[in-house]
Amino acid sequence: MNAANATAISGHQQLANQLIEAIRQLAARGWTPATSSNFSGRIDAGHALITASGGDKGRLTPDDFLVVDMDGQVIGSQRRSSAETLLHTQLYRRFPEIGCVLHTHSHNQTVASRLYARSGALMLGGYELLKAFSGHATHEDSVELPVLPNTQDMPLLAARVEALMVSAEDDHLPVPGYLIEGHGLYAWGRDIDEAMRHLEAIEFLIGCELDLRRLGA
Amino acid sequence: MNAANATAISGHQQLANQLIEAIRQLAARGWTPATSSNFSGRIDAGHALITASGGDKGRLTPDDFLVVDMDGQVIGSQRRSSAETLLHTQLYRRFPEIGCVLHTHSHNQTVASRLYARSGALMLGGYELLKAFSGHATHEDSVELPVLPNTQDMPLLAARVEALMVSAEDDHLPVPGYLIEGHGLYAWGRDIDEAMRHLEAIEFLIGCELDLRRLGA
Amino acid sequence: MNAANATAISGHQQLANQLIEAIRQLAARGWTPATSSNFSGRIDAGHALITASGGDKGRLTPDDFLVVDMDGQVIGSQRRSSAETLLHTQLYRRFPEIGCVLHTHSHNQTVASRLYARSGALMLGGYELLKAFSGHATHEDSVELPVLPNTQDMPLLAARVEALMVSAEDDHLPVPGYLIEGHGLYAWGRDIDEAMRHLEAIEFLIGCELDLRRLGA
Amino acid sequence: MNAANATAISGHQQLANQLIEAIRQLAARGWTPATSSNFSGRIDAGHALITASGGDKGRLTPDDFLVVDMDGQVIGSQRRSSAETLLHTQLYRRFPEIGCVLHTHSHNQTVASRLYARSGALMLGGYELLKAFSGHATHEDSVELPVLPNTQDMPLLAARVEALMVSAEDDHLPVPGYLIEGHGLYAWGRDIDEAMRHLEAIEFLIGCELDLRRLGA
Repeated sequence: MNAANATAISGHQQLANQLIEAIRQLAARGWTPATSSNFSGRIDAGHALITASGGDKGRLTPDDFLVVDMDGQVIGSQRRSSAETLLHTQLYRRFPEIGCVLHTHSHNQTVASRLYARSGALMLGGYELLKAFSGHATHEDSVELPVLPNTQDMPLLAARVEALMVSAEDDHLPVPGYLIEGHGLYAWGRDIDEAMRHLEAIEFLIGCELDLRRLGA
Repeated sequence: MNAANATAISGHQQLANQLIEAIRQLAARGWTPATSSNFSGRIDAGHALITASGGDKGRLTPDDFLVVDMDGQVIGSQRRSSAETLLHTQLYRRFPEIGCVLHTHSHNQTVASRLYARSGALMLGGYELLKAFSGHATHEDSVELPVLPNTQDMPLLAARVEALMVSAEDDHLPVPGYLIEGHGLYAWGRDIDEAMRHLEAIEFLIGCELDLRRLGA
Repeated sequence: MNAANATAISGHQQLANQLIEAIRQLAARGWTPATSSNFSGRIDAGHALITASGGDKGRLTPDDFLVVDMDGQVIGSQRRSSAETLLHTQLYRRFPEIGCVLHTHSHNQTVASRLYARSGALMLGGYELLKAFSGHATHEDSVELPVLPNTQDMPLLAARVEALMVSAEDDHLPVPGYLIEGHGLYAWGRDIDEAMRHLEAIEFLIGCELDLRRLGA
Repeated sequence: MNAANATAISGHQQLANQLIEAIRQLAARGWTPATSSNFSGRIDAGHALITASGGDKGRLTPDDFLVVDMDGQVIGSQRRSSAETLLHTQLYRRFPEIGCVLHTHSHNQTVASRLYARSGALMLGGYELLKAFSGHATHEDSVELPVLPNTQDMPLLAARVEALMVSAEDDHLPVPGYLIEGHGLYAWGRDIDEAMRHLEAIEFLIGCELDLRRLGA
């Protein structure tokens, strides 16, 4: 273990352990193939804990996490964080109530992100499970899950996300997540449990939409 | 643990533990996504044990259950039960032989409930597994699994279920379950084992029907 | 435990335990839904051990097995065996080299059995995995998996199986198994390991054929 | 355990144990049906450790491995290696940096190998996960996964693989793997972890391509 990093994350073992258990479950479902995906939890107004790049997400240890500030700069370690760190800190900076951001690459997320890229969004309506999203009380809602074009230019991708937020009512997206074409999903919540519930609900609804399309509905 | 609730369920630990184990298996199959679904077991002629709303269904404890009377009112606790409690107690009240009600939200149940909503039922015929339903002795039967429109108005939904029962021969549905559009399945049985067998059989048969449709059969 | 049955199977604990472990794996894959399916192993020229009807196949104990003679009559116990016992003993009687018969109800088996019922067989060709069947050395073989009409009349079903054998070259079916429409698969082998290998290979090949059809190939 | 073989592999227990754990994970995903598939790791410039033919890949022991030289001849044991050993040693001989070769028979690999056999390759483009392949830095790449005709003539198959390499830029295939029609996938990497990452990424991308085709995209 890198000594400097060990010191940096030493006050955040509990948060790291909670993230490790949640991520282990996501890896077991096959949503983090080939060492992809990254995950974070808020420490305080100015800092977050985030997974380092690479590595089998089914067997993380606290040393696989880095402390970053809200500009995505690593604190107290020489290691570099993933380029996608910016997409996590963007959310923490903008919404004080967000406590956890989960980024996965499931089969359904990847397939749907390509299928609905041209229309820029996947419409979700008529599902009881829409109630899993905080602020939604009925299956009669019909909401949009945005699909953004992929790019390796993270500041550009972050700007696209920002534009989404600005155009949304009250700055809040109706679904707590967005897809990136050919890439995967970002989902978030107040804490790990809520972020997990949102992620599970989005994955489930995407799966239903894809299957209804396969069935010609 | 809430002290009043602890007292209320103290005589029903064994029933709670049996339900916890069955529900854990259902959660592991992904049939309770995003903290959805609810489950109950009969205590006596006037009472049932039912899961409280929310929470990961893969790791319930006895404190996640409430005692309700047959009007769905919580006994001995200040906590509120799910609005859907009424759909459970309706079955216990009407059929003294029912001992367990399982309500799940699997992918197949959700997709089929939307696909067959317009026709109001899914026909199941030609399957050996129809014998899993008590009272059916041959694969030559052809039976209807009803699909009801969804609503957040539980008394209205309960009235639709009641209308189904009244119109059925001997008041008994040929399949011990019904779908709600975009929502999920209710299934039941004399005890937990029979309810689980019925639920598994319905899920399996729905899965076959969907796939035969995908295959153009 | 039934005392008479305990005595009857007491010399066959090892066979029972080996079957229990194999069946537990099959149940975990979802191939024995809703307490369906049955399984047997040969004891000697005149006897076999077979699962009793019903029960969750994921948690069998030695007491869930019965000793039967080659007419399917239960020995040393008052309990009755499944009506399908006849389809097991028919194979042991006819082929002295068969040591294990596995009957499952997987999703793929059930769907394929309905899809190919009219043509009476599913053709399997061009797969390296055909080499998993004893006696086949190359992927260039093309072989038939028969599909029989379902009936609750077991002697009639056994007669249909007998007719299949008689019409086959050397009395041996090219694939060690057959489907029954809307019902499931019978597969067999010299011992449990070979029967499991045959069952896995048939299930895999059925799955590929169904998917190629979904893909319009 | 065969005593001569025990001596031969005695210096390579750690490599064997690392391979056993990786293979156990692949077997649990169903990628090694019916005792198929084989796996190897490099010992030194002239030797590799490879799985013996057959056997349930979910429960290998060190004795299920053989030491072979780079012509595929078994060293220090009377046992014979699989005919496909040649396809492993071919890679070790040609590329000194390769440390592990994984050959699996998943459902997706088998189905895709038949579907794309005529065109001789499956094009993969537009996926973020292409970055899992060493040397690829962006989702904008579009690369070919070759599909070779199947044959039981291993020297012929090895010659086809050699022809692929010769025609590739810098002798390196853009994707570290190839499909064989109706058979499965070969994938490789510098060490077990990299080979696993490559295998997982190829399987995932094949799965997405098949599903996009099912969805009419």
